[in-house]
Amino acid sequence: MTTVGILGGGQLARMLALEGAPLGVRFLVMDATAEACAGQFAPMVVGDYTDEAALAEFASRVDVATFDFENVPSESARWLTDRVAVYPNPRALGTAQDRLAEKTLFRELGIPVPPFAAIDTRAELDAAIDAVGTPCILKTRRLGYDGKGQFRIRTAADADAAWQALGAQASKVGLILEGFVAFQRELSVVAVRGRDGEFRTWPLTENWHVDGVLSASLAPAVVEPGLAETASTYARQLAEALDYVGVFALELFCRDGELLANELAPRVHNSGHWTIEGAETSQFQNHLRAVLGLPLGSTRMVGHACMLNWIGAMPEARAVLAEPGGHWHDYGKAPREGRKVGHATLRADSTAELAAALGKVGAALGREAQVAPVIARLQDGESL
Amino acid sequence: MTTVGILGGGQLARMLALEGAPLGVRFLVMDATAEACAGQFAPMVVGDYTDEAALAEFASRVDVATFDFENVPSESARWLTDRVAVYPNPRALGTAQDRLAEKTLFRELGIPVPPFAAIDTRAELDAAIDAVGTPCILKTRRLGYDGKGQFRIRTAADADAAWQALGAQASKVGLILEGFVAFQRELSVVAVRGRDGEFRTWPLTENWHVDGVLSASLAPAVVEPGLAETASTYARQLAEALDYVGVFALELFCRDGELLANELAPRVHNSGHWTIEGAETSQFQNHLRAVLGLPLGSTRMVGHACMLNWIGAMPEARAVLAEPGGHWHDYGKAPREGRKVGHATLRADSTAELAAALGKVGAALGREAQVAPVIARLQDGESL
Ligand SMILES: Nc1ncnc2c1ncn2[C@@H]1O[C@H](COP(=O)(O)OP(=O)(O)OP(=O)(O)O)[C@@H](O)[C@H]1O
Ligand SMILES: Nc1ncnc2c1ncn2[C@@H]1O[C@H](COP(=O)(O)OP(=O)(O)OP(=O)(O)O)[C@@H](O)[C@H]1O
Repeated sequence: MTTVGILGGGQLARMLALEGAPLGVRFLVMDATAEACAGQFAPMVVGDYTDEAALAEFASRVDVATFDFENVPSESARWLTDRVAVYPNPRALGTAQDRLAEKTLFRELGIPVPPFAAIDTRAELDAAIDAVGTPCILKTRRLGYDGKGQFRIRTAADADAAWQALGAQASKVGLILEGFVAFQRELSVVAVRGRDGEFRTWPLTENWHVDGVLSASLAPAVVEPGLAETASTYARQLAEALDYVGVFALELFCRDGELLANELAPRVHNSGHWTIEGAETSQFQNHLRAVLGLPLGSTRMVGHACMLNWIGAMPEARAVLAEPGGHWHDYGKAPREGRKVGHATLRADSTAELAAALGKVGAALGREAQVAPVIARLQDGESL
Repeated sequence: MTTVGILGGGQLARMLALEGAPLGVRFLVMDATAEACAGQFAPMVVGDYTDEAALAEFASRVDVATFDFENVPSESARWLTDRVAVYPNPRALGTAQDRLAEKTLFRELGIPVPPFAAIDTRAELDAAIDAVGTPCILKTRRLGYDGKGQFRIRTAADADAAWQALGAQASKVGLILEGFVAFQRELSVVAVRGRDGEFRTWPLTENWHVDGVLSASLAPAVVEPGLAETASTYARQLAEALDYVGVFALELFCRDGELLANELAPRVHNSGHWTIEGAETSQFQNHLRAVLGLPLGSTRMVGHACMLNWIGAMPEARAVLAEPGGHWHDYGKAPREGRKVGHATLRADSTAELAAALGKVGAALGREAQVAPVIARLQDGESL
């Protein structure tokens, strides 16, 4: 029987195991902590990604390896690649780990991006602010997630504060300055590419962030015709350029009807969690089909879906469970400030039904602010 | 965190764990063999259901217990009930374990049943054949499954052969003689009842058996209006009479538009596997919601679904995976003659689409005979 190894044992690994089990494969998860929530449903190797003995044990017990965690050191990924099939390939992973490499690739492929510049020194920051313009954002090139490792620069006078906050990272993980995009919407396209090059995207998703962390996703996004095709084309260009195998998400800003690429997440993605109930095939199962060289499943939607993220602690489940299209996902994690501990997906056959369900759930949980922008968008959409 | 204990570690336990995990619970499975396929995704206690030390360990580690296997000895179920909450209750389990008790209850509730008689001796068999009429079927009262422990009697002259085959069981598990029903269809209603008495049924399902083993299920069944309501009413009466909590299936024969109850399966049921993709909430998740005292999920269908059972060995997956609505379920079991090793579900938005997918899959796998009756029924339905 085939064993799929997953580096990283968080909720993505957990959902990969749960959704992939019906394919008849087994899983082995590697994580630095024994409490990693995927370990509740899959055997684990506990060890750091740089621990060669642990990596060797992991490699000896799996037939193919993939990632729940995108920041696995690329040396570890390469080390594994010499011993076992690894998808996505380390080059794709390496590109996506580095905001500079990623944005450079976007630009090479003709995918629009905000202006950006690499920064190594304090002096380069001033020059870059000049070139990129304000407002802008200073970000670490590597190891950022959920908006961590970012500093917003409103005017050139903020340069000192920005350097104070992140300057020490310049020699460690590198820095990049990006123009701030006054976007109207954030969108993502979740895509999958098979070992044979077959490529599919799920319907375009609109996302709302709070404090840099995903709060809600709506699919299909309510957008002008043509935008979804453009996003799919960008995703396909990227996948082909990187010889990507598996699922990834391309995060996009939409400003005045134009799409600008923000980042590439080289793994199943939070903005694709709605696919478990809202699509014929979930991103988790299709990632595994891709990695295993099996035919990809249909990415068509089944109705309309909205995902709500639960951060810090799980709310009371009843209001969601009592909704006809309400689906609950508790990752089995201990509560902790800022931690993604679960999500809910509401599925409905019409946008009106979905808006009504969101209204009820928001009110019952005292989370009106979380659902309000989604409801507003659904109501816009009806008058389109 | 709540731990749900499951007695029996086969594919039903496996799917309960996979579909129940998103509720944020953990599972502990008890099975006599360490290779039980649920053990690939849940921790196990290995031990016989009559092994008190193993049962005690199991009980000490779970908050609530339920069954994957209906023939857990009722003494073991009662022993557990003194220590931990057990759903369904041992009386419901005991009734469903005994064809005589079950049929007697059906009759008491006014649910039509074929004629039947209990048999203890060879002489009683003759009398019963006389009373019930031929053709008829001699069955063990307990421990039968997948058509095992049955002998068909065409004429009174077959009585000796029947007694030869099953007479020795009379003093062990008891015998019952049932009139043979010349049914046109076999149907089942899969139902769920919550701890608070809330009751729901999934759409009526039509089933096809080969050699006494389920081969295919189609939902919703293509039947005259009213039949589904009657079946639901019977299921509700049974659930209330037994104070049943959890999912069960009521198997029915349909003869000339009339429903006759065959048996009650006190657990999630093979004829409800299509609910994973074909219904808003699967039978597995709703069983757990019921057992945990959570609100029940919607049982509405999402399109049309057909489940095909894989017996003995898994066929090649590709043909099913390549279908837009094709879903694969490999239970991770070693192949063995007659063993249920997996199933596929085809989901479609219309009956015509479903029939076309079945035709393609049947041809690709050389299983035309398995899909033919389902396709024929779907075509009947279109002309209805
Ligand atoms: N150039 C930009 N212009 C405007 N807003 C931005 C820009 N870059 C980032 N943001 C905002 O911050 C959020 C997080 O940024 P980004 O995606 O770069 O960070 P991350 O830490 O990798 O987050 P994630 O975990 O969501 O991938 C974005 O979704 C967006 O809301
Ligand atoms: N009285 C009957 N008249 C006609 N056919 C019958 C009768 N009893 C059983 N059968 C046939 O045999 C099949 C299996 O019978 P039954 O459901 O009683 O056995 P089982 O061993 O408990 O099976 P399962 O595992 O499907 O519950 C039925 O689905 C039906 O096709």
